[in-house]
This record gives sequence, structure tokens and C-alpha cells, in this order.
Amino acid sequence: MKKAVVLLSGGLDSATCLAIAKDEGFVPYALSFSYGQRHTIELEKAKDIAREANVVEHKIANIDMRWIGGSALTDNIDVPKHDSVDQLDGSIPITYVPARNTIFLSYALAYAEILGCYDIYIGVNALDYSGYPDCREEFIQSFETMANLATASGVKAQSRLTIHTPLIDLTKAQIIAKGLGLGVDYGKTLSCYDPVDAKPCGHCDSCLLRSKGFLENGITDPALVKG
Amino acid sequence: MKKAVVLLSGGLDSATCLAIAKDEGFVPYALSFSYGQRHTIELEKAKDIAREANVVEHKIANIDMRWIGGSALTDNIDVPKHDSVDQLDGSIPITYVPARNTIFLSYALAYAEILGCYDIYIGVNALDYSGYPDCREEFIQSFETMANLATASGVKAQSRLTIHTPLIDLTKAQIIAKGLGLGVDYGKTLSCYDPVDAKPCGHCDSCLLRSKGFLENGITDPALVKG
Repeated sequence: MKKAVVLLSGGLDSATCLAIAKDEGFVPYALSFSYGQRHTIELEKAKDIAREANVVEHKIANIDMRWIGGSALTDNIDVPKHDSVDQLDGSIPITYVPARNTIFLSYALAYAEILGCYDIYIGVNALDYSGYPDCREEFIQSFETMANLATASGVKAQSRLTIHTPLIDLTKAQIIAKGLGLGVDYGKTLSCYDPVDAKPCGHCDSCLLRSKGFLENGITDPALVKG
Repeated sequence: MKKAVVLLSGGLDSATCLAIAKDEGFVPYALSFSYGQRHTIELEKAKDIAREANVVEHKIANIDMRWIGGSALTDNIDVPKHDSVDQLDGSIPITYVPARNTIFLSYALAYAEILGCYDIYIGVNALDYSGYPDCREEFIQSFETMANLATASGVKAQSRLTIHTPLIDLTKAQIIAKGLGLGVDYGKTLSCYDPVDAKPCGHCDSCLLRSKGFLENGITDPALVKG
């Protein structure tokens, strides 16, 4: 069985992505980041999800990104709140962390090279998403091209590295339906940009998109039931 | 005057690169990494060089890469020693750190975005180098393509990000000649992979290539004179 590095944030998308990697026959190695995010509760969620999924290894890389600043997720900037998903205007919001997926994927690339593994899973999504540039298909494709020129294994051409984005064309509702079919326990996940006492705020972009996804599946978000 | 992010390791190449960025009219912002390298003396050298060059800001990002392992620069693996530069066989050596330049450039990209800057300088060199895959022109070009799809400023197409590699086609002797012309004090730089008491070992790949470069310029390495 082939190994895969799976980026795991503790949110709904990456938990689904991990379940898909396993379903597609990969032995998962999870990678999370302590990057200076204001809410580290998501790392506890990531640990729970990784344990539940029986990953071979779960690395949490300690990489400070606070010095970069400029984002509501790492800096002392308010996370925008809305009453409805219709208020999201498609522009790049202040929760965007400069180059975050580029940095995360670069570490995944290093980890994959050490593991002798040629598959990376990332739960980016370009449909029901917050408008981040580094969640788009064209970004992922160009990262993959670059990655194959960046490493010793790429140069030796032992194999070709693939970045898997199984969620990229799915709506949030479709992601949830897929995950439920694979037995993902969404009660263990946290998607909120600004949780209070480990509970979702219900009004940030991420909460609104998640909520819409569960609604369209005709069920209540189990994280809210538990909360 | 335009800003540029300059990656600064404390070695000969990056010190020359910083001088070139200034000579080409950029206001330099230096970026170094405390990444778990075994020899942190290079960070002290980087601070000296940045101070001497009057950079506007010198950030040292604290990013642990030791958990990745597999390299003589971060792990408990001996740095290979040779008697002559002729013994370098062109294969990728054990001093290679998986995806290091990809990770460093990703942080430079984040820093550039926050600065509102579209120019990054990196002192990679594909001629007299240690055979690292992420020092080659084709890697840099594909990183640049990816970078322009990765960020908010790239998407807004306010300007196009350029990765400058002024040393890429130069021999070590040519790099030194260029730097001397720009007044670089090579006595302040340290290129060694395995220094002892802050002095170069004289036998690692990096020492041998550096030594050859000074010899071809008909001068003694000022770092050795000082040592």
C-alpha cells in the first residue's frame, strides 16, 4: 500500500480529505501546523481526527507565521461576521493568510520526500470557499509542477509527485455527503475562524458555509448538537 | 525606490546577492531562518551582514525543520569531507535539506506580499554548487509561475512578482569578483557546512568551492585571514 501525506487542519474539509485518502487505498501520514493561529483548539481537533483515523504518524510542525501578520487568523484583527452566506461578496477576505497554502504544501513536500512518498492530499475547495487565491485549481497545478523540480526524488524521476484535491470541485453540501458516506464524525471537527470556548461562532464565513452545507443535506451539524 | 526581499543565510552567495539587490536600486528587507540548522553561527553572520548593509528590516523566522530530518545540516549525520574540489561527483549530497529552498521562498513570498513588494532575491547558483535540485533555473522559474497564482496580489494582478537569481550562471570566482567590486566584506561571511568554533572546516563541499573561488581571484579568503 502506498503512503500519502494528508494536510490536516482539524476542520471539516481536511477531515473529509483524510477519509478519502484512506478510501482511495493510501496509508495516511497526517501533517498539521502550529503556525501562530489565534485559536489552537483546531490542533486538538486535528489530533482527535488523526487518532480516530488510525494514521501511521501525525506530525505537528511548529512554524511561527505571526511575524508575517496581516491576517485576522494570526494577527490582532477582528474576524468579519455576517448574518447570512449571501453577504459573502467573493473578494479576498481579511482571514486570508499570505502564502499559507504555499508554505503548508512546501512542508508536505519535504515530509513526503523523507517518507519516500509521492502523494499529498489537501482539502482545498474552490466552490463554496472564502475566496482564497491558494485554494484554486490553477494554483495547485502550478505547485505540483514546481514540486517535481524541487526535490531530489523529483530530479531522480523515481516517480511523479501528485497533489490530490478531491474536494476542489465540490460544494460544501457534496463534501459533507461524501464524508458522511465514509463515516466521518463531523462532531469532532471545527471549522470556525473565531471560536469561543471551543464552540463555533456561527457568523464567520467558514461557519456560514458549513451551516449551509449541512442544511442542504437536511441534517443538523453534529458539532452544534454536541456543543 | 522599490522594496525587495533578500534571502540571507550568512554565507558568501547571499551576502553578494544582497549587495547586488542594493546596486540594482532596491531597498532591501532581509529574511533569514532559524530552521534547526546544527550551526547557528551563520545567523550571527547574517545579522552582521544585514547591519553592515543597512537593510530596512531583518526578519529571522523561527521555523523548525529538524522534524523532517534526513540531512547532515539538520540531523545527526556527518557532513562529508574531501581533500579537493575534484572529489565532488555531482550527485545530490547528504547536506541537501528536503524542499528547503521551496520552504524559504514560500516565506519570502508571504513577507513580500505583506510589504507590498514584488521582488525577491535569492543567491542560488547552478554552476559551482553542491548539486541541490532547488538551486536550478528551471526550479526557480516554476516557483515564480506558481507564486504569481498563490497570493492575493498575484490574483489582483497589481504587479508581477519576480524572483531574481543574479548568481545563477556565475562561477564561484565570478561571484566573488562581483562582490568585491561592490565592496562586500567576505570576512563577515561563513559558508562552511560544519564550522568548528565559528571557523570554517576547510574540507566540506562548500569550503572547497569557496576556496577555489578565492584562489581563482588570486586572493586569500578574508574569512581565513581573520580566523
